[in-house]
Amino acid sequence: MILSRFQQYIQQHNLFQPKDQLLLAVSGGVDSVVLVDLCAKSGYHFSIAHCNFQLRGEESEGDEQFVRSLGQKYNVEVLVKKFETAKYATEEKLSIQEAARVLRYEWFEELMFRQTPPSDELTENKFLSRPTGTSDGVAITHDSPLTTQVFTIHLLTAHHADDNNETLLMNFFRGTGLHGLTGIPVAYGHIKRPLLSFTKEELLNYAAANNLQYREDSSNQSSKYTRNFFRNELIPAIENVYPQVKQNLQDNIERFKSIEALYKLSTQQLIKKLCKEKGAEVHIPAKQLLQYHNRALIFEIIKPYGFTEKQIAEVEKLAVAETGKFITSPVLAFRIIKNRAWLVIAPAEDAGVGHVIVEGPGTIGFVLGLLEVKQTSVSNEQTPNSKLQIPNSNTEALLDAKHIEFPLLLRKWKTGDYFYPLGMKKKKKLARFFIDQKLSKTEKENVWVLESNKKIIWVVGHRIDDRFKLTNSTTTAVKLSLKTGMR
Amino acid sequence: MILSRFQQYIQQHNLFQPKDQLLLAVSGGVDSVVLVDLCAKSGYHFSIAHCNFQLRGEESEGDEQFVRSLGQKYNVEVLVKKFETAKYATEEKLSIQEAARVLRYEWFEELMFRQTPPSDELTENKFLSRPTGTSDGVAITHDSPLTTQVFTIHLLTAHHADDNNETLLMNFFRGTGLHGLTGIPVAYGHIKRPLLSFTKEELLNYAAANNLQYREDSSNQSSKYTRNFFRNELIPAIENVYPQVKQNLQDNIERFKSIEALYKLSTQQLIKKLCKEKGAEVHIPAKQLLQYHNRALIFEIIKPYGFTEKQIAEVEKLAVAETGKFITSPVLAFRIIKNRAWLVIAPAEDAGVGHVIVEGPGTIGFVLGLLEVKQTSVSNEQTPNSKLQIPNSNTEALLDAKHIEFPLLLRKWKTGDYFYPLGMKKKKKLARFFIDQKLSKTEKENVWVLESNKKIIWVVGHRIDDRFKLTNSTTTAVKLSLKTGMR
Repeated sequence: MILSRFQQYIQQHNLFQPKDQLLLAVSGGVDSVVLVDLCAKSGYHFSIAHCNFQLRGEESEGDEQFVRSLGQKYNVEVLVKKFETAKYATEEKLSIQEAARVLRYEWFEELMFRQTPPSDELTENKFLSRPTGTSDGVAITHDSPLTTQVFTIHLLTAHHADDNNETLLMNFFRGTGLHGLTGIPVAYGHIKRPLLSFTKEELLNYAAANNLQYREDSSNQSSKYTRNFFRNELIPAIENVYPQVKQNLQDNIERFKSIEALYKLSTQQLIKKLCKEKGAEVHIPAKQLLQYHNRALIFEIIKPYGFTEKQIAEVEKLAVAETGKFITSPVLAFRIIKNRAWLVIAPAEDAGVGHVIVEGPGTIGFVLGLLEVKQTSVSNEQTPNSKLQIPNSNTEALLDAKHIEFPLLLRKWKTGDYFYPLGMKKKKKLARFFIDQKLSKTEKENVWVLESNKKIIWVVGHRIDDRFKLTNSTTTAVKLSLKTGMR
Repeated sequence: MILSRFQQYIQQHNLFQPKDQLLLAVSGGVDSVVLVDLCAKSGYHFSIAHCNFQLRGEESEGDEQFVRSLGQKYNVEVLVKKFETAKYATEEKLSIQEAARVLRYEWFEELMFRQTPPSDELTENKFLSRPTGTSDGVAITHDSPLTTQVFTIHLLTAHHADDNNETLLMNFFRGTGLHGLTGIPVAYGHIKRPLLSFTKEELLNYAAANNLQYREDSSNQSSKYTRNFFRNELIPAIENVYPQVKQNLQDNIERFKSIEALYKLSTQQLIKKLCKEKGAEVHIPAKQLLQYHNRALIFEIIKPYGFTEKQIAEVEKLAVAETGKFITSPVLAFRIIKNRAWLVIAPAEDAGVGHVIVEGPGTIGFVLGLLEVKQTSVSNEQTPNSKLQIPNSNTEALLDAKHIEFPLLLRKWKTGDYFYPLGMKKKKKLARFFIDQKLSKTEKENVWVLESNKKIIWVVGHRIDDRFKLTNSTTTAVKLSLKTGMR
């Protein structure tokens, strides 16, 4: 019953394909032990990743040993990383739980994005090709002459319905918009959460029925962590008044997912009608904007350019200010300028309409949205297997840092541009590449490239250059993320 | 400081005009005592209404005496009504708090809707005229030859920010959509809540600073009522973890008000594009609807016709069912019928496209939306003053029940129709009335009338007939409410 619900959930949410390579985040607690058992019974191919945060002395070592024994039981590879969590928390001024979270996901990212193509024929992959479906796990691409099989690795976590309720409540009490009401995402890039529909109680029952051993985390009993307080005290207290509260919160999450999707879609249509694109600028009729008397509308318009919720009031003032007044987004990439009857959103760099200099890691805005540039270390021994691990989104790229020289130049593509598409050993004209990729005229007009030392390293949102890809010798990667806004 | 914030809040939210007649709901607790003091210091014209729920014996009597003395202190009229709350709760199977709420608002409605025109010249009022602005408190109408001054009565309650947070949380834990996240409305018809931005603490400080006496309600200290549990236990517990939680919840409410307004506006535009109106029917392309994969969208489309959230799944099934299959809304007024590539929303009565029979009190759907018909008793001695009290919405009407015979006939207006517009002693052709009211061609096409015994009693959404209005001799009223949906 649980097993078939588990498999159905994965299929319905298109989390991954039965043949895909999986990496399971396993603490040794009941949730992750159940996850391992369900994956084994489903015949999935998986390795186990265990973080030893070294926070509970002997107990932490015991957890690690237990997870290693779990690997033997199911005959799968176990990857373990020890963290100096307490030290890191002090250094970074984070709470212990936040520090553990950052360290955990940093390591998982490394594991997932570590890219070791087994051969040249296997370098074509989903990351590089335009998506051919909505599934995250699409294994075959169709457009390129070099297309062969794609290997995708998914990281599975054991988050369940009770975790989701706790997250929902924490978001709500900290203050939130619609997105915070949608809880923990079922899929976020390569991270998948196939237990999200199961309650803790269901997992405990499954473990008991299947004689599964697991570790009790002593820190779960104390309410010194916010999440534990919600779990152990707050939600039970609310259950006394509303016995159905857990189910009601689950229903809220589903309802708000749907509402958020409709909200995004329909507000973008409204914004498209209200705002006029003029080259690199967006022109908004000031009086008309104010007539809506709606702060959410203003925020939806300015958010993609890096403006904050606190700047809504500034925009309202600007709308009635004199021509020439302007405000700037905190990342300094965009301005909103009052120009007679209009509010004009424009790149802050006057000369930068078609050229943006990227001095180094950080976030910079340009016409397509925000480009985030990060350095991240890559360690070879953590590769869970020899297959290809790559971001499964067109808007992310990982490159070998040793070939990259700052500043980078972000610019519109132009006729005559060429690069070495990942998977190919010879150069290709961009114009030709776009034909192969079947880009429309409008799509072509909006393509930007990122250059290092006059070489294109990334056709932004499309494909990286083969010369800059990660290899077995990569020690540091540059991670590029494109965050697009409304258009 | 509090006084000027109070007056500003009323002005900003257009709650009422300084000269308007007010009725203050006063329990004798600190909130309502502060409300009375602020209204007195602002020079507003007000009476006091006090409900004696007779739930706490001597204490209830003490409260009543205290409120009567408050009337003497401020030299204003005090209206008191005693309720058999416990008995009513048992009979109606309600909790004590729910019963008290129902009884309170029923009485308040009576007080507000009691209509005693001081003279024939004063019968023109906002209810009857088309709105000339967005303000609830617009005092003068322009279109009719009989236009004179309008008297509006507002009921003020002392709900404050802490009440609002509690309501928000109760909604959230019971399960909610966007609307439940907007908390207690600042204005709902004639009911206005000018203290909604003040915290309990601010009200207590104001009472102390101004030496105001008030009654302590012993039942507020016990957590046997859900609200008290939230107030006395739950919120303080959350404050230990998130000290800013109260402010965060207030910010959530403001944010979601804005999000809800934008959501409504933009989804209605999307729905207008997706759905085609064909006479009395709405045609929805079934395949296109399913392609959105969005349950909120389906619900927004079907909700105005009385379909429930639970029927979303039925609509999804119907969209792929064979031609001729249909589902019916619980009020039985509408069907959704599968017809080849379309889902068709149509009035359930085959012959009833232009005629709907209203057998008696209840709710019935027709093309404009839902018509609710209620009987309500009217007692003369509760009239707070001799001025006109009327619904301040075009979508509500109150008529004298003694002149009304069921069944009523709800139908489209036709050439030759006439009625006696409220305020006029002679009949008028509808066609002529619409010219005076400056209705557009489309507006005219969508006018329906409600008939009793072949006489028009209400031009729905526009004006009642003078022969059916409430008078001093009215003992029972028929309350008609039009609940329009998306169009």
